[in-house]
Amino acid sequence: MKATARAYTNIALIKYWGKRDEVLFLPMNSSLSITLDKFYTTTTVEFCSCLSTDVFVLNNKLANEQELANVTRVLDLIREISGKEYRGIVNSVNHVPTAAGFASSASGFAALTAAASKALGLELNSSELSRLARQGSGSACRSIHGGFVEWQKGENEDGSDSFAKQILSNHDWDLSILSVQLNYGAKVVSSREGMKRTRDSSPFYSGWLATIEQDIKTAKEAIQSRDFEKLGQIVETNAFKMHATTLGADPPFMYWNSATYDVIQEIQYLRSVGIQAYFTIDAGPNVKVLCDPKDEKDVYEQLIHMPVVQGIKLCHPGPGITYLSNSSRE
Amino acid sequence: MKATARAYTNIALIKYWGKRDEVLFLPMNSSLSITLDKFYTTTTVEFCSCLSTDVFVLNNKLANEQELANVTRVLDLIREISGKEYRGIVNSVNHVPTAAGFASSASGFAALTAAASKALGLELNSSELSRLARQGSGSACRSIHGGFVEWQKGENEDGSDSFAKQILSNHDWDLSILSVQLNYGAKVVSSREGMKRTRDSSPFYSGWLATIEQDIKTAKEAIQSRDFEKLGQIVETNAFKMHATTLGADPPFMYWNSATYDVIQEIQYLRSVGIQAYFTIDAGPNVKVLCDPKDEKDVYEQLIHMPVVQGIKLCHPGPGITYLSNSSRE
Repeated sequence: MKATARAYTNIALIKYWGKRDEVLFLPMNSSLSITLDKFYTTTTVEFCSCLSTDVFVLNNKLANEQELANVTRVLDLIREISGKEYRGIVNSVNHVPTAAGFASSASGFAALTAAASKALGLELNSSELSRLARQGSGSACRSIHGGFVEWQKGENEDGSDSFAKQILSNHDWDLSILSVQLNYGAKVVSSREGMKRTRDSSPFYSGWLATIEQDIKTAKEAIQSRDFEKLGQIVETNAFKMHATTLGADPPFMYWNSATYDVIQEIQYLRSVGIQAYFTIDAGPNVKVLCDPKDEKDVYEQLIHMPVVQGIKLCHPGPGITYLSNSSRE
Repeated sequence: MKATARAYTNIALIKYWGKRDEVLFLPMNSSLSITLDKFYTTTTVEFCSCLSTDVFVLNNKLANEQELANVTRVLDLIREISGKEYRGIVNSVNHVPTAAGFASSASGFAALTAAASKALGLELNSSELSRLARQGSGSACRSIHGGFVEWQKGENEDGSDSFAKQILSNHDWDLSILSVQLNYGAKVVSSREGMKRTRDSSPFYSGWLATIEQDIKTAKEAIQSRDFEKLGQIVETNAFKMHATTLGADPPFMYWNSATYDVIQEIQYLRSVGIQAYFTIDAGPNVKVLCDPKDEKDVYEQLIHMPVVQGIKLCHPGPGITYLSNSSRE
């Protein structure tokens, strides 16, 4: 009754922004992502008949009550499917910068879902895993898969049709994703709070929803035809729109800071000299830059020398859930 | 047949953003401004029976064809009212930084309208002047008046009810407006092009229009009750919304740059330490900061030492159209 799984973070190319159901983590809109090959969470779950409560160790420290409650909520779903009532010990190690627009909760809940269901002997397919992971953290449903992934928002009230599907494997199109870490601290508004405030109060939210299906369609066409420029343009457009919606919220807020802007301007400069690079920004100040692998060295060199840049991690499309043998962990 | 008038620029507190009629300069939404006491245009118009064409001298240089055509268009309207066909010599001097979010066209067309109509002996009231100035440049209709001014968008197709009214004189409420000039060049997208692109392509434009009347109402209440904090909040909220709409345009664009952001963050910092200062931003990177006159020295000191700040001009609410005696100009 023990299993270990690794899941990688993903960055949204077309953003998940707003829930229609806060409990089931059902999104207002479909989204599209790339799973990355560098940032991941490794989680071991061991169920045991002798435990009276779940135990959650995160990065070698006992997790706090809220973190434990989130984990227990997902374990409960898996216990319900398996019909087994055992409590579990969850040991999770994040190799992800947290709370700055890098979705550590995505890799975390994906790895937890995979490890826990395997530990209880369930043979779930990836759609079932994705649906479960979604109930830990929305974007976790995308980290079940590698490569290019679409999370279809679904229509059903119970969320049964809201899960992610792979649209292209990580082996089928190589891109460079530069994860640019800026000299600034953690974000002020969590993505959970940010999307709620935006959905409930921004006069721009309806405009966001009205254009998202077309954005998804354009991005999928670009991916299917390996059209990098088309993909880059829609990715930037979509990121701009997501961040615009926050400026209309009550009270308004923004995830960017002046360093974010500096990097945006640098990317625009790179394009003006013929290097096709495009950015996206999640719910935090840090920037991810997409480019063709042949340009990654030039883009890296250009950005790493900016005073506002603290570091750059170079990523490529990564795999989905990977199970590690328990012996290799023990 | 000669007259000289001076008009001051204004800054929009609730923004004019989008035209419903490109020829008559009719706006999609009402707007609200403060006329400033520091930036102005002085214009002398002399009509003469011996001229075969209008002549336009701008800042002691002969204006280009497009500039002349814009001036002639306004002179034609005034000639039509007066029934006189004389051509005129227009001599205009701007004391305004141009094309960086400081509306030099506002003071320019207001001064032109006033000087030209006086030179032809017309006795127009301020509403009539405002309506005419609007047809030179939309926001010019607000610079006819001093102090706090509302431009009511009107409903009529011919624009007869689209002009500005004073809502509070510059003597009735003193505010400090710090016009912060940044170390950056002119804007890339003109406000004319920017508002057109936004109106035609941004999915957020309808959200902008849906909330503008409430913004105007809130700002007017704040002005009537001299509630500075309430005014500052709605001014910032409205500026955020205007700039958010541009991020949804096709292609997206933005008037801010990283220096703009630095100043925004500094203002937020000032508020966190108890100094009530608020910003607004027009169609360019520069920032205007509103504060209580008792705080203006503190705010000035805080901002002037920022590396991105090139200079600050300290303004207060200024007067409307002023006529200068010709003898003093000759």
